[in-house]
Amino acid sequence: MKFEILAQCTKTKARLGRITTHRGEYETPFFMPVGTMGAVKSAQAWDLVDLGFDVMLSNAFHLYLRPGHDLIKDVGGIHKFTGFDRGILTDSGGYQVFSLSEHRTVTDEGVLFKSPVDGSMHNFTPELVMEIQTSLGSDFVMPLDECPSSVSDEKTVQTAVERTSRWAKKSKESFEKLRQEHQSLFGIVQGGVYEHLREQSLNEILEIGFPGIALGGFAVGEDQSAMLESINELSPLLPLDKPHYLMGLGYPGDILKSVALGMDMFDCVLPTRLGRTAAAITSTGRLNMKNSQYRDDSGPLDENCDCKVCQTYPRALINHLVKQDNVSGLQIITWHNLAFYAKLMKSIRNALRENKFNEFCDSCLKNTLIPGI
Amino acid sequence: MKFEILAQCTKTKARLGRITTHRGEYETPFFMPVGTMGAVKSAQAWDLVDLGFDVMLSNAFHLYLRPGHDLIKDVGGIHKFTGFDRGILTDSGGYQVFSLSEHRTVTDEGVLFKSPVDGSMHNFTPELVMEIQTSLGSDFVMPLDECPSSVSDEKTVQTAVERTSRWAKKSKESFEKLRQEHQSLFGIVQGGVYEHLREQSLNEILEIGFPGIALGGFAVGEDQSAMLESINELSPLLPLDKPHYLMGLGYPGDILKSVALGMDMFDCVLPTRLGRTAAAITSTGRLNMKNSQYRDDSGPLDENCDCKVCQTYPRALINHLVKQDNVSGLQIITWHNLAFYAKLMKSIRNALRENKFNEFCDSCLKNTLIPGI
Repeated sequence: MKFEILAQCTKTKARLGRITTHRGEYETPFFMPVGTMGAVKSAQAWDLVDLGFDVMLSNAFHLYLRPGHDLIKDVGGIHKFTGFDRGILTDSGGYQVFSLSEHRTVTDEGVLFKSPVDGSMHNFTPELVMEIQTSLGSDFVMPLDECPSSVSDEKTVQTAVERTSRWAKKSKESFEKLRQEHQSLFGIVQGGVYEHLREQSLNEILEIGFPGIALGGFAVGEDQSAMLESINELSPLLPLDKPHYLMGLGYPGDILKSVALGMDMFDCVLPTRLGRTAAAITSTGRLNMKNSQYRDDSGPLDENCDCKVCQTYPRALINHLVKQDNVSGLQIITWHNLAFYAKLMKSIRNALRENKFNEFCDSCLKNTLIPGI
Repeated sequence: MKFEILAQCTKTKARLGRITTHRGEYETPFFMPVGTMGAVKSAQAWDLVDLGFDVMLSNAFHLYLRPGHDLIKDVGGIHKFTGFDRGILTDSGGYQVFSLSEHRTVTDEGVLFKSPVDGSMHNFTPELVMEIQTSLGSDFVMPLDECPSSVSDEKTVQTAVERTSRWAKKSKESFEKLRQEHQSLFGIVQGGVYEHLREQSLNEILEIGFPGIALGGFAVGEDQSAMLESINELSPLLPLDKPHYLMGLGYPGDILKSVALGMDMFDCVLPTRLGRTAAAITSTGRLNMKNSQYRDDSGPLDENCDCKVCQTYPRALINHLVKQDNVSGLQIITWHNLAFYAKLMKSIRNALRENKFNEFCDSCLKNTLIPGI
């Protein structure tokens, strides 16, 4: 994997970059829509291309449980399986495994857990997680990490940091043996909101050596300003010649602020999850499309948006469909929400290309793109 | 509305035609996907265009109840409301009103019924049904008719035929006063499977005079061979210079056989409804995509299909998604099913253009396109 900086913002740490692998080129900063089970809800694989997404995120934990990584390998790998032939990043599933709380036991070898699907027992080790993802053939591979909850005390977070580093080392060794040529393994930095633990984690990960750095354990319930503060503290320490992936983020305002802090890659369930609750993300804020004020509204969902949804449907139709619990309404909103994120990232990249990112960012944040959305 | 015959099959009654209205041109025979509430489930308005559908069907009864025809008129009419700017046919809702059984009372004036939405009482008259559809602005308008159940005795069907004719006359008078320039009102022929009642109904409808003839009360539960026999008996009596709309049909094999009997327009919930039960309509028969035999199948849904779904996804992904009750699986199958119908109609039209319809029809029916699908 090659990472180049194409343009550096002169007022912030934001940068326009390009990741090149044996399978393709992807300009950063980018946002990855989430297709946990191999498909993004309400969008066909060709819709993602149409919307302008270069990289999709899927989940190794879920695909391991069902239908199984060996099956996907036999079918021809994750790109053939999902029908998405651009980039695919697979999350390791560390976050999901740790979320099982009472149904898992953590040791230095890995995590023993009870499958939420059929109750069977599984042992997730760093090595198994590499076996899964190298079988899948995803472009960007994540190691097993320990992601403590946002309310964990310092000692718990320290243990997690140290274990994450030991597992990162094992993961790299295993990955080097099993990898396909186009695959790249990222290192994950933990440490919660404890500055010195983040720094320790980063140093250990850098020492092992990875072509990309992921910041994990953010956006897991902690205070938003603490999160941004923590990223701000960490960002001067990040190597400039590697892509920085901020896992699980987030709100459009947070993405903008994080890009300004030098972050390059994002993923979040927000556009699809909000869509399924009839919430539209627009340039003037979040709209609850169940609200009767839209019942006879002939305007588009977002008057500043030129996506197919906004060019096609009036708010009145969308309100009508969601009030009837008609699935088409939620599909329409989700499509727009995805378009909103795709367009935001494209605007960010274009602003960086023209060295106007700071102005673009200010103008967005002065409007309503701030955390409320 | 102008209807021209572009090509007449020399071996069957099938014909290639063109309907021209002030809004557009639509080649027949065509199939209309069903968007009861104003949207076709699992397909965006632009997908319908992409798939090759010229005309969509919606339902006046449902849109009258929610969100109301006046609201749709205020928003700019049904094309603006639905975002579908090609042809739209609205069914009157006669079938839906009569399906309410205990919750409706039929008189010569109309049908008094209790709303299934909120229990309020409504009086559906031929005049109101015209007011609704002229407000909506659909291209093809259907009058209120009485559609008796398939097990009705002769006397019941005769009463329905006579009432349908009286209502047709009232509808025409009302339509002429209220219509928009691009709108055309069809006459509906009832009569169940009683040959002489079908003939009586047709003669009365022809005498009143309509630019298009719809055959109603088929595919409502009667024996399939009785239905085709009845259409066969009726077909020599139909005026050749008007389009023939066979309402509510149906299976691909039945559509082929009905085209051979001179039918020009079709609608059915089958492709979308089957899609939502994980049943795929393919050139080799109906496939239940929940079936484990597809779990590691790397082939397309239908190897004889070149639709986007068949070019993009392996059966293994679809099986995986439907087994997980992931809505994406049903969306994928529905998209293919719609593509199957669009392609079938396009193939029929092309075969007619080249005077090869009979051979095309035989070859389809010799394969598995027969009623089983």
